[in-house]
Amino acid sequence: MSETHKEVGTNVSQDSGCTSLSLGRKHEASIHDLTPCVDAPIPPPLLWPRLRVYGRDAFSEFFGTMILILFGDGVVAQVLLSHGQKGDYQSISWGWGLGVMLGVYASGASGAHINPAVTFANCVFRGFPWRKFPIYALSQLLGAMCGAAIVYGNYKSAIDTFEGGAHIRTVPGYSATATAGIFCTYPADFMTKTGQFFSEFLASAILMFMIFALKDDGNLGAGPLTPLALFFVIFGIGACFGWETGYAINLARDFGPRLVSYMLGYGHEVWAAGNYYFWVPMVAPFLGCTFGGWVYDLFLYTGLDSPINTPWMGIKRLFGPFCRKKLALQNLV
Amino acid sequence: MSETHKEVGTNVSQDSGCTSLSLGRKHEASIHDLTPCVDAPIPPPLLWPRLRVYGRDAFSEFFGTMILILFGDGVVAQVLLSHGQKGDYQSISWGWGLGVMLGVYASGASGAHINPAVTFANCVFRGFPWRKFPIYALSQLLGAMCGAAIVYGNYKSAIDTFEGGAHIRTVPGYSATATAGIFCTYPADFMTKTGQFFSEFLASAILMFMIFALKDDGNLGAGPLTPLALFFVIFGIGACFGWETGYAINLARDFGPRLVSYMLGYGHEVWAAGNYYFWVPMVAPFLGCTFGGWVYDLFLYTGLDSPINTPWMGIKRLFGPFCRKKLALQNLV
Amino acid sequence: MSETHKEVGTNVSQDSGCTSLSLGRKHEASIHDLTPCVDAPIPPPLLWPRLRVYGRDAFSEFFGTMILILFGDGVVAQVLLSHGQKGDYQSISWGWGLGVMLGVYASGASGAHINPAVTFANCVFRGFPWRKFPIYALSQLLGAMCGAAIVYGNYKSAIDTFEGGAHIRTVPGYSATATAGIFCTYPADFMTKTGQFFSEFLASAILMFMIFALKDDGNLGAGPLTPLALFFVIFGIGACFGWETGYAINLARDFGPRLVSYMLGYGHEVWAAGNYYFWVPMVAPFLGCTFGGWVYDLFLYTGLDSPINTPWMGIKRLFGPFCRKKLALQNLV
Amino acid sequence: MSETHKEVGTNVSQDSGCTSLSLGRKHEASIHDLTPCVDAPIPPPLLWPRLRVYGRDAFSEFFGTMILILFGDGVVAQVLLSHGQKGDYQSISWGWGLGVMLGVYASGASGAHINPAVTFANCVFRGFPWRKFPIYALSQLLGAMCGAAIVYGNYKSAIDTFEGGAHIRTVPGYSATATAGIFCTYPADFMTKTGQFFSEFLASAILMFMIFALKDDGNLGAGPLTPLALFFVIFGIGACFGWETGYAINLARDFGPRLVSYMLGYGHEVWAAGNYYFWVPMVAPFLGCTFGGWVYDLFLYTGLDSPINTPWMGIKRLFGPFCRKKLALQNLV
Repeated sequence: MSETHKEVGTNVSQDSGCTSLSLGRKHEASIHDLTPCVDAPIPPPLLWPRLRVYGRDAFSEFFGTMILILFGDGVVAQVLLSHGQKGDYQSISWGWGLGVMLGVYASGASGAHINPAVTFANCVFRGFPWRKFPIYALSQLLGAMCGAAIVYGNYKSAIDTFEGGAHIRTVPGYSATATAGIFCTYPADFMTKTGQFFSEFLASAILMFMIFALKDDGNLGAGPLTPLALFFVIFGIGACFGWETGYAINLARDFGPRLVSYMLGYGHEVWAAGNYYFWVPMVAPFLGCTFGGWVYDLFLYTGLDSPINTPWMGIKRLFGPFCRKKLALQNLV
Repeated sequence: MSETHKEVGTNVSQDSGCTSLSLGRKHEASIHDLTPCVDAPIPPPLLWPRLRVYGRDAFSEFFGTMILILFGDGVVAQVLLSHGQKGDYQSISWGWGLGVMLGVYASGASGAHINPAVTFANCVFRGFPWRKFPIYALSQLLGAMCGAAIVYGNYKSAIDTFEGGAHIRTVPGYSATATAGIFCTYPADFMTKTGQFFSEFLASAILMFMIFALKDDGNLGAGPLTPLALFFVIFGIGACFGWETGYAINLARDFGPRLVSYMLGYGHEVWAAGNYYFWVPMVAPFLGCTFGGWVYDLFLYTGLDSPINTPWMGIKRLFGPFCRKKLALQNLV
Repeated sequence: MSETHKEVGTNVSQDSGCTSLSLGRKHEASIHDLTPCVDAPIPPPLLWPRLRVYGRDAFSEFFGTMILILFGDGVVAQVLLSHGQKGDYQSISWGWGLGVMLGVYASGASGAHINPAVTFANCVFRGFPWRKFPIYALSQLLGAMCGAAIVYGNYKSAIDTFEGGAHIRTVPGYSATATAGIFCTYPADFMTKTGQFFSEFLASAILMFMIFALKDDGNLGAGPLTPLALFFVIFGIGACFGWETGYAINLARDFGPRLVSYMLGYGHEVWAAGNYYFWVPMVAPFLGCTFGGWVYDLFLYTGLDSPINTPWMGIKRLFGPFCRKKLALQNLV
Repeated sequence: MSETHKEVGTNVSQDSGCTSLSLGRKHEASIHDLTPCVDAPIPPPLLWPRLRVYGRDAFSEFFGTMILILFGDGVVAQVLLSHGQKGDYQSISWGWGLGVMLGVYASGASGAHINPAVTFANCVFRGFPWRKFPIYALSQLLGAMCGAAIVYGNYKSAIDTFEGGAHIRTVPGYSATATAGIFCTYPADFMTKTGQFFSEFLASAILMFMIFALKDDGNLGAGPLTPLALFFVIFGIGACFGWETGYAINLARDFGPRLVSYMLGYGHEVWAAGNYYFWVPMVAPFLGCTFGGWVYDLFLYTGLDSPINTPWMGIKRLFGPFCRKKLALQNLV
């Protein structure tokens, strides 16, 4: 049993699609290997570690996104509710930046997407299995909701004081002491719908372009510095493109906490604000990340796991089975 | 002799419980190894290096925690006493963050806990020997007290000027020119006791969850970047959850300097402030760190040194001897 | 085909001058190597990946410089247009610093120059082929122009609001609500022409001196930390020498966006401002980078790829063919 | 010739005391090694590279300290002269921190001391040859003076504007528009002489304690992250202990620029200010660094190159020849 789990532990960053199958086989082997040098019978596989293997991806994305939201929503709460005495806009860039960095460290086992749009772009351009997309997106959403709820619990007294009462909960644009901005993003007043969409699209495209660059060993590649480099990417997007729409660039990060704030009584305005802005950070990140990944692959990526580098730029692949085995045989993936 | 001490030096990050025993044996060996190529008789083992081996863990934790407090209390002193001219709230996040980072670099020999609650969680979840807990906790406490005393000595003139006289020493909530906040944490006014406790509990849980994530090679793992990543963890906790209670998350860091400030004449108020808040940062970190570590191990950790991954989730282990040898034979620990 | 492109991918940081020649030969080889273990005929080399090899350097420098300008111009736009509410001068140092860092990660395939003056100094002191200089400089210029245009598109509404109308576009020194400073640099009022030139020259010299130091393995060398160290270099130049002229230190970074701002209707003042300052950040970086590189090589560099370490300090080399082959035979380059 | 210089280049971080001797011998060897595979006669050793070997340490420390002062004095100039519009106190912490980091990268060839007190402590505790101390200290001093002069040249117009005229140069405490603080440190008003001395002593001790910790492979050790970790050390000292005396902690950094400012016409007050404070940052760093290094070696260091770990704690060694050869034979140094 031990050997088996160890093996799962060390291979975490690879596609573990067939892990459950190989588990059985490897187990028998490990018993025989270990028998001569231990003085007690090997216990049978434990129930929880055995079950946990099936939920590994989900748990990993859940906690990664929860860490992201804990730090991200937490820093906005602290800066807003302390009236800027315990931080300023730069603190917010720090908080979201290190939220992503630490979320990535927490969720390495599942590939550290912590963003449905990143999962989506990985499915399209890096052969990440489509069947995993729903469970990833759901785990990310639930993790974000859980994180937002914890931040609310932690800052409840301060929100009461800020809003002026325990039952007053308001949304930016409707009140001067609004606190809904702690949880999800609300665009600046002067933005048109097109501008909102373009801003989120652009930030998402930059995000995905940089993620692909950082993970591309054919380029410089950030290697073990990737989480740190992602801190700089997110900090940079916050400092350079964060004003107009609040750089959600992530359905889970925005929709999850927005749902929680609606449940907590912030009212219909969480949807209506910014001329029903809420759908923009749900749709734009998918399009932006896909575009950013496409630009990177088209001009800079030479790896064969990208459809851009396959016949007909992968269009054929969309309509046929993806012969992963063939590539694996060539040691190319 | 030389060989012996070298050996101590290179194995510092491991459990050195049996180092003193092996010292004698290895010494004889090293004499014979070196005899042919040196032109002078090897001197006998020196008194102080030989004694120091026994105090290694204690010295290491002492200085690690002292460095933490020197930078941490130092930055609060500088920001407060200069009326914000030489730093702002973000400087304080920097100071505590790099205090932990540099404290960790200074105390690598003992595992760099510099926090009794971290030592406790390591005992519970990582098989760290319980017999070491008292000496670790005591060293950390003394190191923190020593650090606070040095900061006081360095800033005495400035405190006199700030408070209005050499014999005036006041505590936040009792005076507008209070300086006791330099040494230990005092909660914000609006906090209930439950809120105080939850805030410290949450920050401690996040701390331990992230420490386990950063040290987990089955996850991404931060490897040699761990001290730097801890800077971001502490910075993040300070920027995102640091307002309400001052994020002590460490008995040694809070109780030690609080005791020093009491000795220095800040009066009974250091205990009474915040409705006798002082016990919260003593108790909550232990519970929070244990909870955070438990969550990480339950959902994400696959290593066999965690009781979660042993039969009955380690409950059995609590009532029986921990068969470390057996695991060692399997090369699993 | 696959093997061939893989090979291109892994050798990206070397001089790929002869890549296109070896492509053909290697291709035959790879077919034979792979034939036994694949179940389908290898497709012929694809059109786009085959063409892309020729544009690799250009694409790489284009996107690297675009990323630099996206973050750099973006942060200035956000700080200026939000009247300092969403950032301050330190944010600008962050933005340019991480713009260079991330631009370097994006353009590793071509050596990550993203600055014509850096390319120039590499030609002079590191044997970088002169024939590549024009294509590098042009790609960098076009990338910077593209980045500036995107930033303009993203912040158009905010610029309209700030300037007071969709058709008002003004330059610093001619209006209190000028926004041309988003795109390129304008010197402080009190600067003489000599001071402007010296300031740009000095900052460029420090930049090149540090780049050579960071890349010199005979010195400490930053190795994989180079992009991070460059963040500190640019942040430092911004924080220490950035006030007087805005530290362009890069023809592409300054002239490209200046041209874009002229096209966008900022008027003749983009050239006339600061007593026709625009040519200083075009000329000074070349002289400064060359001087900084010369100082480094003269006093600290021991590598043989620098002309300083060849007979007559390379003066002979300027008038004769550079016998690269000879050095290569000695494994010295 | 080539081979010889390459060899010098790759061994730079070691004691190069005997390099000049081995140069001759190695040269003959390299000719014969290379003869068969080159098509031209090897040129004789070049004059300048051959001479440069003797000045390597001096050049390296000179430029390292110059880089430190360029960034350090530069950031103070920018913040002060722009009336805080282009930076604040935190920028100053950044500037000095990255000045040290980049100075260390520039001067790796000589061990990157860039501080006479660090050289001194290395002589006392790490067997660094005493005969090198004078040349190191002098190079550091000259480098600092050169850096300060360049900063003055760069900011001359701005200083004129700030002081109110080209011939007015004043010192803090004597004028409200004093600019002498750009170059060297002046203590806060409320400090007693004892407090000044203790503050510099403490900061120097922390500096040396941390340098020894970061370089100790028997502890965690920062390895290739050392320059980055030093950024945090200096940033931390600036943020936590930088207010009272300006954390000179370096004779070269303070006395060199002070001398330059005296030459530039700041008058006798550069010496008289702070009740003749100028000697404190000359003396205290040596005592503080020695004390900090002694504490680290006494309690935490196990390496045999420290006298603390030799008989009689090295007192004997002070009065007898240090048998380096013996240790070298044992591969212990």
